[in-house]
Formats: sequence, C-alpha cells, structure tokens
Amino acid sequence: MSEMDKPILVFQTDFTYKEGAVSSMYGVVKSVDRTLEIMDGTHELPQYDTWSASYRLNQSLRFWPEGTIYVSVVDPGVGTKRRACVAKVNGGYYVVTPDNGTLTHIDRDMGILEVREIDESVNRLRGKDTEGVAIFHGRDLFGYTAARLAAHIIDFEGVGPAYPLEEIVRLPDPKAKIADGKVYGMIEIDDPNFGNAWTNIPLKMMQECGFSYGEYLPVTIKCAGRSVFSEKILFDKAFGCVEKGAPILYNNELMNVAFAVCMGSFTEQYHVSYGSEWTVEIGA
Amino acid sequence: MSEMDKPILVFQTDFTYKEGAVSSMYGVVKSVDRTLEIMDGTHELPQYDTWSASYRLNQSLRFWPEGTIYVSVVDPGVGTKRRACVAKVNGGYYVVTPDNGTLTHIDRDMGILEVREIDESVNRLRGKDTEGVAIFHGRDLFGYTAARLAAHIIDFEGVGPAYPLEEIVRLPDPKAKIADGKVYGMIEIDDPNFGNAWTNIPLKMMQECGFSYGEYLPVTIKCAGRSVFSEKILFDKAFGCVEKGAPILYNNELMNVAFAVCMGSFTEQYHVSYGSEWTVEIGA
Amino acid sequence: MSEMDKPILVFQTDFTYKEGAVSSMYGVVKSVDRTLEIMDGTHELPQYDTWSASYRLNQSLRFWPEGTIYVSVVDPGVGTKRRACVAKVNGGYYVVTPDNGTLTHIDRDMGILEVREIDESVNRLRGKDTEGVAIFHGRDLFGYTAARLAAHIIDFEGVGPAYPLEEIVRLPDPKAKIADGKVYGMIEIDDPNFGNAWTNIPLKMMQECGFSYGEYLPVTIKCAGRSVFSEKILFDKAFGCVEKGAPILYNNELMNVAFAVCMGSFTEQYHVSYGSEWTVEIGA
Repeated sequence: MSEMDKPILVFQTDFTYKEGAVSSMYGVVKSVDRTLEIMDGTHELPQYDTWSASYRLNQSLRFWPEGTIYVSVVDPGVGTKRRACVAKVNGGYYVVTPDNGTLTHIDRDMGILEVREIDESVNRLRGKDTEGVAIFHGRDLFGYTAARLAAHIIDFEGVGPAYPLEEIVRLPDPKAKIADGKVYGMIEIDDPNFGNAWTNIPLKMMQECGFSYGEYLPVTIKCAGRSVFSEKILFDKAFGCVEKGAPILYNNELMNVAFAVCMGSFTEQYHVSYGSEWTVEIGA
Repeated sequence: MSEMDKPILVFQTDFTYKEGAVSSMYGVVKSVDRTLEIMDGTHELPQYDTWSASYRLNQSLRFWPEGTIYVSVVDPGVGTKRRACVAKVNGGYYVVTPDNGTLTHIDRDMGILEVREIDESVNRLRGKDTEGVAIFHGRDLFGYTAARLAAHIIDFEGVGPAYPLEEIVRLPDPKAKIADGKVYGMIEIDDPNFGNAWTNIPLKMMQECGFSYGEYLPVTIKCAGRSVFSEKILFDKAFGCVEKGAPILYNNELMNVAFAVCMGSFTEQYHVSYGSEWTVEIGA
Repeated sequence: MSEMDKPILVFQTDFTYKEGAVSSMYGVVKSVDRTLEIMDGTHELPQYDTWSASYRLNQSLRFWPEGTIYVSVVDPGVGTKRRACVAKVNGGYYVVTPDNGTLTHIDRDMGILEVREIDESVNRLRGKDTEGVAIFHGRDLFGYTAARLAAHIIDFEGVGPAYPLEEIVRLPDPKAKIADGKVYGMIEIDDPNFGNAWTNIPLKMMQECGFSYGEYLPVTIKCAGRSVFSEKILFDKAFGCVEKGAPILYNNELMNVAFAVCMGSFTEQYHVSYGSEWTVEIGA
C-alpha cells in the first residue's frame, strides 16, 4: 500500500506549540506508521472552548481531500466520563474528538453518517509508561486511534461500538432570520487575528432582504440587550472598499456577513465579542 | 511523475495559526494534488506589512531548493484592483503573491526574470460555495494557483498574461553609504523574537571603512533626526563576545551588521524600531 | 534508497516562527536532500533556557520512532567556544545540539551511548554568502549536519571526533525524596499554556508514601524557603475531578505529579513558577 492511499491527518487543539505536547502526540502517530502525513490545523484554539473547536472544524474540513481524518482535541473533561469518538462525515471525512460539542457545526452543515465510541481497551497507546496517565488523550487515545485508522490497522468498525446519532453532544446554535424587513442574527465567532466579527447571517439572507453591495445599512450590535454599536456602515465585498480605519459589513470566507475595520480591528475598536448574548440587527 | 518532481510550496502570511484560515488554504492545495509538499515559512508577519513580507521572503528563499514555489500573502488590498501575480526568480524559484511590494528585495538581490498576472477566470477555486468570496485570495487564488503550478496542471504561461517588469510595485529601499570615514545607513527590520535591530549596512562596507571585529565604535541611532542611542559599542562576531545585558554590533545572518543585547532585547532596552526614519551612523 | 529509510528530523528552538529563521533553516535541510521529512517539535522554547530545552526533549523524544534525529537549538553561546555535538541515545535516536545542558534529562532517563563534536571544517554550510556568519548555527551547522546525517551523506563517525561522556554539560537536577512520611521535591517546569506546575516527584513515590487518588493532602510550595502556597488539595487523576477554578494535584503525562486548576491556571492563580528555588512538600 502506498503512502498516498492513507488519508491525511489534520490536528486542531488548544495545546499551543509552547511545550512538548504536540511533538509527543505527533511522535505517537509516526510511531504507529512512519508514512502517515500530519498537517497542523491549528493548536491555538481558545482554551476549553468547544464552540470554537466546532466552528473551526466546520470552517476548514470541507477544503481537505475526501477521506481526510481531522483530529480535534479541546478536552476540558479529559479523564472523566465524556465520550471519546470517531464520527464519519458526509464526503468521506472522519473526525476524531471528545464528544463534547465539537461535532455541532459539522453535523448541521455536512451531516454525520455514523459515530463510534473509541474502545480504550483496544485503541489506546500501550508502553512508554503511559498506562497510568489520564490527562493526555490527545497523545494516548485520539492521536493513536486516528493513526491506526489512517494506517488501515483498524477500520471504522474497529474504533469501537456505534451509538445513536441523537446522543451526539450538540451546542445551542441559533439561526438568523428576517422579520419586518430587517435581518436578525448574532456574532458567532471572531477572527482573533484581524479582529473581524463573524455573524451567523448568510449573504443569501441579506440578498433576500433586498440589501446590495454599495449600500450604507443601519446596523445595531447589542450585548445582552444593551446597544454596543449603532451606525450606518457600508455593505460591500472587500475591506479596501472603505478608508483605513472605517468599519465595513462584508461577505466572509464562509459566505456569511461579518464586520471589519479596514486595516484595523473591529472587535477592539468597538469592544465587540462573540457568543449567544451578542445580537445583530441590520436594516431600518 | 513522482512526488519529488514537484516543487515544494512554502507559505508566508500574516494570517497567524489562531483560526482556520491556514488549514483551509492548505486543504485546497492538498485537494488540487494530494502529493504536494507544503512547508510553513511563517504565518506571523506583521499585519498588512508588505515591507516585512518582502524582507522575509528575501531572507529565506535562497536557502530552499531551486524550483521552490514561495507563496506570500500579506494582502490588505485583497478584492480591490491590485494585481495578483507569479514572478519567476533567478535560480528557478517562483513567488506567488499580490503585487503590492512583496517583490522589492527579491528583485534587487536575486533578480526577477518574468512576471505574470494570475488569470482569475482560469486559476481560481470553483465550488465549495466560494465564488462569491472576495476576501480570501490566499485560499481561493494564491494557494490554488501555486498548487496547480506545482502539480504541473498549468505551466508558468498558464498563470496568465505577462506584464512589464517595470510595472512591479517596488517599495522605497534606501542604500547605505560611506562618507567622511563614517558609515551611514538605516535600521530596515527587527528580529521580533530576540529584539535585534538589523541595518542595511553590509559587513563589507564596514570593512571598506576600516572597521574590524574587536573595536569599540561610536554609534548613533536617530529617529526622524532625533538621537535615540549614542554610545561606543563593541563590533564583533557573536553575542557572547559581550557580557549579558551589554549591547553589541555584530554581523547578522544576511551579512549585514545589526544591533543586539547579549541575552536581552536591543529594541526594547533602547526603544528602537525600524523603517526609513530610523537612521544609523557608525564611526567618529 | 527510499525516503522512508531516512530518519525524521524534529526541530525544537527558541527562534519562534515570527520571522524567516526557521524557514531558512528548513530550506537548508531540503537543499541537502529534498526527500527528508521535517517536523516541528516547538519553536517557542523560552529564550536562552537550556533547562527547558533539555526538559522538552526528554518529554517528547521517546514517543518518536527509533532512529529519529532531534535537533535542539537553544544557543545563547553561539559563535563562542561551547561545543556543537551529536549525541547517540539509547533506542537508536540522535540529538543534534549545542552541548550546553540540552542533554541533561535525556542522559538521565534514556542514556547517551556516544557523543561527537561537529567538525565545522566538514559539516558546515558553504556558499550562499554564509561563511562569515557566526550567529546562526541552527541554519549553518546544526540543521545542515542533521540533514547530512539523515540523508546518509555522513554516518555518525562522519560528524566529527568523539569525546568522553563525562564532558557532556549537565545542569543541576535535584531528586525528590521521602522523609518522615512526607514527600519532598521541586517544581521543575511549568506548562506555559495551561498554567500547570510540574514537580519532579514520580507518581510511584506518592504511592510508596501511602498517598492515594481521592485523598485531600496538605501541600506546601515554597520559593527560596518562603511559603507561597499552603493548602489541603485533592490528589486525583484528572482535572475534572474538582470544580472549575479549584486546585488539584494530579499525575501528569510523564508520570510525575503536578499542580493544576480545573479550567484555570495554577501558576497565575497562585503566583508559582519553576526552578531550583521552588520546593514542594506533600503530606502531614
């Protein structure tokens, strides 16, 4: 079997690269099968933030080749009773993760076909004095199982017993809507680098509501009902459509509208964050 | 065709690894051709800083094998009229980048042989609901085109139409000089990790001016004409030639002289930064 | 010879990925042999901290396949008289590093079989205008030599002359002990991401002393003899065994006990750091 018959493994965690954890985890993968290909998704997810893990997985997975195995480890409950699982996703993808909310967006947008609980009695690293360790499933369970699956040492059934799709842990995931000629939604994530604020409002919903690129639209952003931002801003396709420092409502990489400041940070400039309490109204 | 007949792709951006952008971009590359080899240059370039992009590209490109394709995406003008291009560089290298200054140093030090504008009608990702996205050319245009070039799906002509080398965007790039027995230059970049300040003064020019390792040389650093640092400091080959905490003038990895503090940060300790207003005089 | 007959190269440094240094170093490796496989260990070791380099190497190396070459460059003495070496480690591993303390833990826990000083007259990058550079041995010496070793251009003897194992630089490395029914140790490293504090006390020593999971144990942490933390805390296997925000004594990934706060930072919450002055007493 050629190296190229084995799927790529992409990893996302909240471990950072500051110490030896990622190296140890990848070493285990390479020790299972030297020919496996490992790629970094990100290791800088916000700590313990299963919502971000779910969002980032959904943002990226579809761009990888069919069959890719994505390992997502944001795992505040490691060593406790939460399930460790592998989900089979439409398009031939697999996601290896604690079942703690990671699968929320993928389930909604791509569809999960089957989910199996990792059987620790079979699919756990042995030796290297690791049997007594309860707090590093990235290395000892998720990385190891993903490697065995990618290397065809086990097949999907070999992961462990299937369980009902309804039992998958899903985080609350509000939908945007149109009412009275306005669009109502929320800020569901930020871009922690450039300081953009991404809504759950699809571009298509903006168009249904009659809004077009080039228009200045009244926008109100509230936090727990209190207005934080209330301005007319340009709705357009790219940051450079406004002057440096000016806010803009644009279509983001996932075809949802988002807020940015041209060559600046919207979230810092306007003290905006994300989550269910951060609501957005667009239109007059 | 073997994997090793396809050039390596090295990426540098200002995206950081904090969210899913790099993963999505790399997924597109792997979806074009699973066998392509991707390496991280850096994803931590200062935001919107096309000068740094140009400098870092020049710092690293020559050390990669001939034929390597370097993708550089610092792109504040994404979605506006700036050109997207591929430049063919002496030594068989290719650079895929917005033409917004990235090519300044490479053009000066290595030489650009030909430049072509990326034809979006051919070389842009289709499907995955990306056609309406104007703000992620790293994923949809640069990564995708670079992957197609590396995979020999297109040749260099297949990128799009050539345009005159004179039209390449070049940033101002002052030269160091000798006058009255002194060397005059500028601080053109910092080392953001160790806090060193790198000048545009070649070691050779120091030698032409009669300065030798082991000498204490009078140095003045000015910001916009105002003196910020004025001391006699040791000119020598390595940081360990002075005591911990002491400043030194040394020969950096690109054979230009630079300022450091032994096991400390020159830029923090002396409040020094980089850019055209940061001038340096060495000698009495 | 197939690509898979050549060992993996794993790199750890204090360079960060902020500028072009890692890219240049990796480019040199790939220019020696395009087929070599490079993995990031970490590039975020604390600056100049040879103790951390030694600890992280020991934390990760054993999880990589036999034969793996680990390149560790934390090198405040670059360009001075410290030795540059390659150590052959039990299990078929090689470590390429300045001999400045990096080998302390590996020597203790895995065992070094032989060590050779890198002969710069043979194993140093030539050309690319690098001969006059004294401050980037990661690129010009360590990366280059590791690549030649991995590519079988040189064998271990080809590195340079062997020197006595006793001459390896070892950092002080205190042992934990049991006395009067208490366990005495130190905090030898932190987890800079999650804020855990790792002691040098093996889980086994806790068991020898009669301590069991589920017990609340009196713990005192002192800095230079002064008490910094003194509480009864739960000794258990995983973070989730206590409430969010509560401290816990748990068994870490290397089978030593460590301090954490559930979904918080122990080192920040209690102002605790690491090093020989940070002592720990457990038991009444």
